[in-house]
Amino acid sequence: MEFTAQQIADFLQGEIIGNPEAKVNNLSKIEEGAPGTLSFLANSKYIHYLYETKSSIVLINKDFTPEHPVKATLIRVKDAYSSMAMLLNMVEAARQPKSGINPNTFIATSVSLPASVYVGAYSYIGENAIIGENVKIYPQVYIGENVKIGHDTILYPGVKIYRDCVIGNNCTLHSGVVIGADGFGFAPMGETYVKIAQIGNVVLEDYVEIGANTTIDRATMGSTRIHRGVKLDNLIQVAHNVEIGENTVMAAQCGIAGSTKVGSHCMFGGQVGLAGHINIGNHVNIGAQSGVTKDFEDNQTIFGSPAQPKREAFRTAGMIKRLPNVLNLVDELQQEVKRLKQKLGE
Amino acid sequence: MEFTAQQIADFLQGEIIGNPEAKVNNLSKIEEGAPGTLSFLANSKYIHYLYETKSSIVLINKDFTPEHPVKATLIRVKDAYSSMAMLLNMVEAARQPKSGINPNTFIATSVSLPASVYVGAYSYIGENAIIGENVKIYPQVYIGENVKIGHDTILYPGVKIYRDCVIGNNCTLHSGVVIGADGFGFAPMGETYVKIAQIGNVVLEDYVEIGANTTIDRATMGSTRIHRGVKLDNLIQVAHNVEIGENTVMAAQCGIAGSTKVGSHCMFGGQVGLAGHINIGNHVNIGAQSGVTKDFEDNQTIFGSPAQPKREAFRTAGMIKRLPNVLNLVDELQQEVKRLKQKLGE
Amino acid sequence: MEFTAQQIADFLQGEIIGNPEAKVNNLSKIEEGAPGTLSFLANSKYIHYLYETKSSIVLINKDFTPEHPVKATLIRVKDAYSSMAMLLNMVEAARQPKSGINPNTFIATSVSLPASVYVGAYSYIGENAIIGENVKIYPQVYIGENVKIGHDTILYPGVKIYRDCVIGNNCTLHSGVVIGADGFGFAPMGETYVKIAQIGNVVLEDYVEIGANTTIDRATMGSTRIHRGVKLDNLIQVAHNVEIGENTVMAAQCGIAGSTKVGSHCMFGGQVGLAGHINIGNHVNIGAQSGVTKDFEDNQTIFGSPAQPKREAFRTAGMIKRLPNVLNLVDELQQEVKRLKQKLGE
Repeated sequence: MEFTAQQIADFLQGEIIGNPEAKVNNLSKIEEGAPGTLSFLANSKYIHYLYETKSSIVLINKDFTPEHPVKATLIRVKDAYSSMAMLLNMVEAARQPKSGINPNTFIATSVSLPASVYVGAYSYIGENAIIGENVKIYPQVYIGENVKIGHDTILYPGVKIYRDCVIGNNCTLHSGVVIGADGFGFAPMGETYVKIAQIGNVVLEDYVEIGANTTIDRATMGSTRIHRGVKLDNLIQVAHNVEIGENTVMAAQCGIAGSTKVGSHCMFGGQVGLAGHINIGNHVNIGAQSGVTKDFEDNQTIFGSPAQPKREAFRTAGMIKRLPNVLNLVDELQQEVKRLKQKLGE
Repeated sequence: MEFTAQQIADFLQGEIIGNPEAKVNNLSKIEEGAPGTLSFLANSKYIHYLYETKSSIVLINKDFTPEHPVKATLIRVKDAYSSMAMLLNMVEAARQPKSGINPNTFIATSVSLPASVYVGAYSYIGENAIIGENVKIYPQVYIGENVKIGHDTILYPGVKIYRDCVIGNNCTLHSGVVIGADGFGFAPMGETYVKIAQIGNVVLEDYVEIGANTTIDRATMGSTRIHRGVKLDNLIQVAHNVEIGENTVMAAQCGIAGSTKVGSHCMFGGQVGLAGHINIGNHVNIGAQSGVTKDFEDNQTIFGSPAQPKREAFRTAGMIKRLPNVLNLVDELQQEVKRLKQKLGE
Repeated sequence: MEFTAQQIADFLQGEIIGNPEAKVNNLSKIEEGAPGTLSFLANSKYIHYLYETKSSIVLINKDFTPEHPVKATLIRVKDAYSSMAMLLNMVEAARQPKSGINPNTFIATSVSLPASVYVGAYSYIGENAIIGENVKIYPQVYIGENVKIGHDTILYPGVKIYRDCVIGNNCTLHSGVVIGADGFGFAPMGETYVKIAQIGNVVLEDYVEIGANTTIDRATMGSTRIHRGVKLDNLIQVAHNVEIGENTVMAAQCGIAGSTKVGSHCMFGGQVGLAGHINIGNHVNIGAQSGVTKDFEDNQTIFGSPAQPKREAFRTAGMIKRLPNVLNLVDELQQEVKRLKQKLGE
């Protein structure tokens, strides 16, 4: 498909600077722009690329005025970043949706599938599972007994969902995600450990997205619960009986130990670890690689291992930086005191 | 199924305080208690929930006496936690066990399966594999050539076991576990690397449990060996030729580099990293996120990155906490020495 | 198969010390040597094993002369380690290669497979995928639409490759690897997040090896690119639009955030984290568990969290070690200044 600058400007309610007949058939990053592609400029760090890019069209913010001549046709829009996101989503939406039920699938006799559902080859749907409208189940997915999956949810190839778990509407689970494996529960018995059965489940509310190979364990009793709008990146571990509040987002490789509660609207950097049985408030931001060992209240930024509020963490970091000077100073003081003592006849 | 307080007290050899006819059909956490459920109280942090819980029955320790009136029927037992674990395991055991061999499976002609084995759809069992009695192989599992699996072992959906590996009796491997992928062995050759074939295997002894998406690499030569009773949580990396001693447990996202030996009865917090070619003794506890760079002997607790014995690690942490005061003190000393110098006519 | 010391010495162009008729049928580590096996000695830390080993033959370096009597037959070679690697690779190569296309596979009608390709049971190959000569696709692999796979590449059981991705020649992807899942891209919209479609892909060039359960996300636009000869260990996260230069190797559980560029010939220890949008030069070595927050130029070793050049990181570490002494010194100075003040009548 090919679009003119005019068509795109009309769609985005933007204003053209340059050739309204400039044509594009793909999107690109401004620094990788090629003729026939459309790019965007939102971050001022990237302005210099505007004067070099080979993209045919560039979206810019309404309040931005180039200081040098630009080859590309420009379209001024209210917010270049969100306009670009809209175009990206249009390209994605234009792809032929998957449909139909492959005959090489295991679908338990008690399961009835809406006609709008896609089930790819070699997927397994256990007894009494309930699958909503427009659900896309890619190949090699496992859905255990009594699992409920809301409408418009996508399960990419190889997702595994253990029995009794509940997945909301409009969720996306990427390949290799494991939902509902046993929580890590063992009781010491003499020199060995005995397993404690994990009879709870996992509940994902609506609009949750889970990255590739992330694991969310079932609760010992009750539910491990991921609230509406949560976005988890790849290779994250969520232990049994954890609760993650609405619209919290976590970067890759975070790990949350058992029974910890995380509030809503939090943002975690990558490789963060949270101890078990702690409470993190709402709107808490945690720096990458932090290790959180205790409760933190709402509305703060913390980092470090062990994690501290930003101000304290910065102070500690700053002091460690000052250490070389301090040590020199102490050496100097030692010399001076020695001299003073000599002067005083000691 | 429904049970009365009397039936449960008889089974657990406990003593009833309250209504022996109170009925329950499920288990719950005390803070999430609902009518018709049974909870337990073991941790004194949770005592206040006892007076609010809606659970119909609560297990308490023999030596505990409530200070306020309690609505629920209580059952006094020797150890409330282990009694609860017993009930959880009963609930689990009451589930209908999986059985039979799905026709849509690949089973090599040289393989003979005991009648007690379950094999779910789309699983693959390679030539000369040996599968013990009562093994449960869920759907989409891969078992390579010459693999041996002991009796009563469970392989959850999507487990992958490369050729020649050995899994003991009564093991549990969760979804996404990869046993026997190549160790990370490459020899530099000029500007590039050449792969070193990994011809060893992985041996899991009896009663080993491995969490979801954990990976255990095959040895270059010989075996990567996980001894009896080891419990590994999710997303752990165990490199080639590692050895982990009996009844050691590791929380999620730990990583053990090549040829390292870990003793028995160790406990690792989450996200711990161990360097290659080191030796960790028996009964060593390692704090979460520690980075272990050298040998440690038996019977100690270590943490930090690089990890130190607990006492030293605490001292270092304490000193860093004292730093602000020390810096103030140094500033003061500097002022005083200056004054003294002036007084002495310098 | 059984070989004599003479046959092996001839093959490796080595010199025999001992019995040319000594026979071996397997390889072993020197410390685990058994009769009938061949071992090697390269690392001087292991010399004492030479005098105890039960291996029948041991490869040693040309310039090494034993100081005590040795039971095993020795073969002196130019480089014992690389000779051993050669023998390991021979053993591996002697295994019967997989071949043929299992009938229980999904192969889209538009796909034509070379006769030399192996496809194991329950694998899926989507429309317009292109598969090169001698590719080995183990069971339960997913290959999305339009994926291209070069010749002589191996995809182990359960690998998942999303649509449009490109895999080079002579690559090896281990079980559980996920290539091309969506990058973690969400734009805030009021209290919630909207997904930004990820329409790019992942490109793996030739001779890339990817460890078990590692995830490499597709680009938002353009490509996430892994250059020729890169070796990634298990459970690594590579985010969208990352670029990793030729012959860089990373140990397990590293995480690289979005749009970061890593140069060629770098070596990363385990559990390293890199922030997004940074540039790491060529020949940069990064210590295990480091957290890299900014650009670093070519040819250096860095570590720590935040990562610093080796010299600075060592200095910081050394100072923290000196702290107890410094604090004592400050206490002493305080006492002495107090005394001096008294002496001066203050």
